[in-house]
Amino acid sequence: MSNRIAHAGLAAKCRTAEEAAALIEHGMAVGMSGFTGSGYPKTVPLALAARMTAAHAAGDPFRVKVWTGASTGPELDGALAQADGVEFRLPYNSDPIARERINKGQMQYFDMHLSQVAPMAWQGFLGDLDIAVIEVTGITADGELIPSASVGNNKTWIDRAKGVILEVNRWQNPALEGMHDIYYGTALPPHRQPIPLVRADQRIGQPTFRCDPEKVIAVVETDAPDRNAPFTPPDDKARSIAGHLLEFLNHEVGKGRLPASLLPLQSGVGNIANAVLTGLIDAPFENMVAFTEVIQDGMLDLLDTGKLRVASATSLSLSPEAAARLNADMGRYREKIILRPQEISNHPELVRRLGCVSMNGLIEADIYGNVNSTHLMGSRIQNGIGGSGDFARNAFLSIFMTPSTAKGGAISAIVPHCSHVDHINQDVQVIVTEQGLADLRGLAPRQRAELIMEKCAHPDFRPMLKDYFARAMAGSYGLQSPMLPGEALAWHQRYIDTGTMRL
Amino acid sequence: MSNRIAHAGLAAKCRTAEEAAALIEHGMAVGMSGFTGSGYPKTVPLALAARMTAAHAAGDPFRVKVWTGASTGPELDGALAQADGVEFRLPYNSDPIARERINKGQMQYFDMHLSQVAPMAWQGFLGDLDIAVIEVTGITADGELIPSASVGNNKTWIDRAKGVILEVNRWQNPALEGMHDIYYGTALPPHRQPIPLVRADQRIGQPTFRCDPEKVIAVVETDAPDRNAPFTPPDDKARSIAGHLLEFLNHEVGKGRLPASLLPLQSGVGNIANAVLTGLIDAPFENMVAFTEVIQDGMLDLLDTGKLRVASATSLSLSPEAAARLNADMGRYREKIILRPQEISNHPELVRRLGCVSMNGLIEADIYGNVNSTHLMGSRIQNGIGGSGDFARNAFLSIFMTPSTAKGGAISAIVPHCSHVDHINQDVQVIVTEQGLADLRGLAPRQRAELIMEKCAHPDFRPMLKDYFARAMAGSYGLQSPMLPGEALAWHQRYIDTGTMRL
Repeated sequence: MSNRIAHAGLAAKCRTAEEAAALIEHGMAVGMSGFTGSGYPKTVPLALAARMTAAHAAGDPFRVKVWTGASTGPELDGALAQADGVEFRLPYNSDPIARERINKGQMQYFDMHLSQVAPMAWQGFLGDLDIAVIEVTGITADGELIPSASVGNNKTWIDRAKGVILEVNRWQNPALEGMHDIYYGTALPPHRQPIPLVRADQRIGQPTFRCDPEKVIAVVETDAPDRNAPFTPPDDKARSIAGHLLEFLNHEVGKGRLPASLLPLQSGVGNIANAVLTGLIDAPFENMVAFTEVIQDGMLDLLDTGKLRVASATSLSLSPEAAARLNADMGRYREKIILRPQEISNHPELVRRLGCVSMNGLIEADIYGNVNSTHLMGSRIQNGIGGSGDFARNAFLSIFMTPSTAKGGAISAIVPHCSHVDHINQDVQVIVTEQGLADLRGLAPRQRAELIMEKCAHPDFRPMLKDYFARAMAGSYGLQSPMLPGEALAWHQRYIDTGTMRL
Repeated sequence: MSNRIAHAGLAAKCRTAEEAAALIEHGMAVGMSGFTGSGYPKTVPLALAARMTAAHAAGDPFRVKVWTGASTGPELDGALAQADGVEFRLPYNSDPIARERINKGQMQYFDMHLSQVAPMAWQGFLGDLDIAVIEVTGITADGELIPSASVGNNKTWIDRAKGVILEVNRWQNPALEGMHDIYYGTALPPHRQPIPLVRADQRIGQPTFRCDPEKVIAVVETDAPDRNAPFTPPDDKARSIAGHLLEFLNHEVGKGRLPASLLPLQSGVGNIANAVLTGLIDAPFENMVAFTEVIQDGMLDLLDTGKLRVASATSLSLSPEAAARLNADMGRYREKIILRPQEISNHPELVRRLGCVSMNGLIEADIYGNVNSTHLMGSRIQNGIGGSGDFARNAFLSIFMTPSTAKGGAISAIVPHCSHVDHINQDVQVIVTEQGLADLRGLAPRQRAELIMEKCAHPDFRPMLKDYFARAMAGSYGLQSPMLPGEALAWHQRYIDTGTMRL
């Protein structure tokens, strides 16, 4: 028996992954832990996938509804999708096998704002939650649960599920205990109260999840690492983008429109985000804080320099090297990192109050500043909207970053008209590409168009954009946001037909 | 000297409208009061328009930037647009002359979320505010200002402007004093605190505006009614829409997903909104409250029945008959109506906390539930996004309502693909037309498409939509949200070319 399970009653419920997976039946809704590849259950979903495959081989149906925090790992989304075991999935997915099934029309995918998953689960229209499968770091003597490397919606899944399966993962550092801040003050209206958080570094909850031991139907011991994708060093374009952005932040501090310590940073994941965080190491800003979803390598580096004082998030998503560094010095990092439920890390009330500087990626932006973050060519989903909507609409400064082209130059990230819109122009204040930065604040649509074409578009596509805009100015139905409906999406159709948006 | 001006120093600053307008110069940014046709200044803008016309006749440039609360009246937006005196306008406009100039490309129009106007004015990127022109009901002996029939951004304009011109309108009922709740606790980050409002009927501020008398550069006495458009009784389609919606609300109460008193109502303006409010008179819900932008006729009727206990808004927008009724009994209504600054009436923090039931109109929705509230055929702006984004994203229940066709059946309100997006599908939970109601909560895109086509589309357009969707299912680049870019906006192009979306 592991010393990770200090509660005798729960220790008595230890089962194999197969025994636990046998408790999950066709048609059930299952709430899983996991956010950006960390803290997801690693053995029960694999055992469940094996059951599904066997059932399908026997001609029996076996598919479940899967609710998570955000993206998980191949042992969960990948394995279940491979087994064709997912009928419905929410909220965010980045698994390639699941993505393929979604885009073949074989899986229903409900892509939600991450802050709304927990409250909507309480509202009831998503239906009952049958079983929660939650990875934890350990179980205390009084049966409280020490969270793992992400918090996500775990509190809500534990509270809402009829039965709870716990994976106690010995791989997770026991010194994670005390890093988490689980807020138990949420409610449905008319009983909602202000969230009492006014600083990113504030703790407003408790370090553990409450869980009625009676509801726990199985405890499974595991020892497996998080997905922990390798770190890719920023390339030239990412460094250019970061350079433009840092120059802009400097300019805003100079104008007195941002404090010298900036405002709480929110950063999406990936190469460009890491380049910005790396750039901040040498920037003149001190005593920064982050109020974000995910702590990735660049954020850890910034904490190490002391320039970032504290980082609040809902998940750790690190390379194996950074995870090892964190694990080796967890006691110290625990003072600088706070992991919260995603309904708090992404809460519009808090993003607005704290005044986040929000930095997210995009797939395409149109000349008016509308942004598509999710659908390639308008129809094929890449990952999902994630928390970008929670942050972009409420941020003090809402910034979107992208290389100006994709697919070796065949796709322009700046298009006449977005093929799908996730962020309306009102929520997009700054667009940055390696070409330059467009500060769109306070500008009307035609003004935004001139600036985006000039500053952000790749020179190869700029004349095509200007040509479209000039013809739209001459022939549009109205001139608030000039547009030619018969041609607005022609670039996307051309890419589908010929493999390039170029003429 | 009017007894409306009890402060001697300010009484000494009484001027004619022409004298006051002479203080406004070419190129200035002017913050005006006014929200949905009430509480706007009525004589200074007319005098300013006359100056502009004279200047233009003399070959001199004379254009200003106009910031308001929302729409105003013909004496402001209409007159200034007629004089070609507006270079830049924010946030919401419904004036036909201004709309025409905007859509001819002669005026820059920055269409913003209404909750964000005040905080963004403080952020500074909109530039300086030179002069505020604010209608008030009166001035107290200590120089505080008794607000008029709308609050809008007046607090912010008074605080931010270098000089303040007051219009003291004798037409406004002096018994308005005490109806308003002006909250002085907002700040820029990092100094923001929770807004201490947890119930729609709560007062958290003071009844008057503070204003340094030194900043007041002119006081103008006026006696003129608000725009007060006549009330149009709901037609059959509006009554059908209201019927479907009330049936749904009943269903939700029955399911235990809404309290029997519902949750705070937000209602857009117009015919359909009035039909819903009228329908609520005979519905079984008691002790309702409203937390909304505008109090229109239907809301007043509902207050009269006692079924609506209190209404919180930022503006009164009534027919002449309803305004007379309100004025005759202001003392009683003052106990049931609270008018707040629009940064509070529309604050995302409060909309989310209170859990509003949000009901707004639309121009078109696509089969996936994305909504266009602003741009006809993607380019010609009708009014603006107003507060719909503040409410729809944060509401407990986000409802959009529209007749299924427009222009005598030539336009379908349900289209394959929105020509402009103001509300992404994640923020659109229910769509209602006279044909029926689609409850989209918890559904993935293809599921939403089936439901919207079946429940909401007009039978004349339903086969065309189904045909498009079937071909998109067969030929789309990806099947998360099936789409044919080359054809997605063909209905709009056809309308532009032929005057109808029909084949």
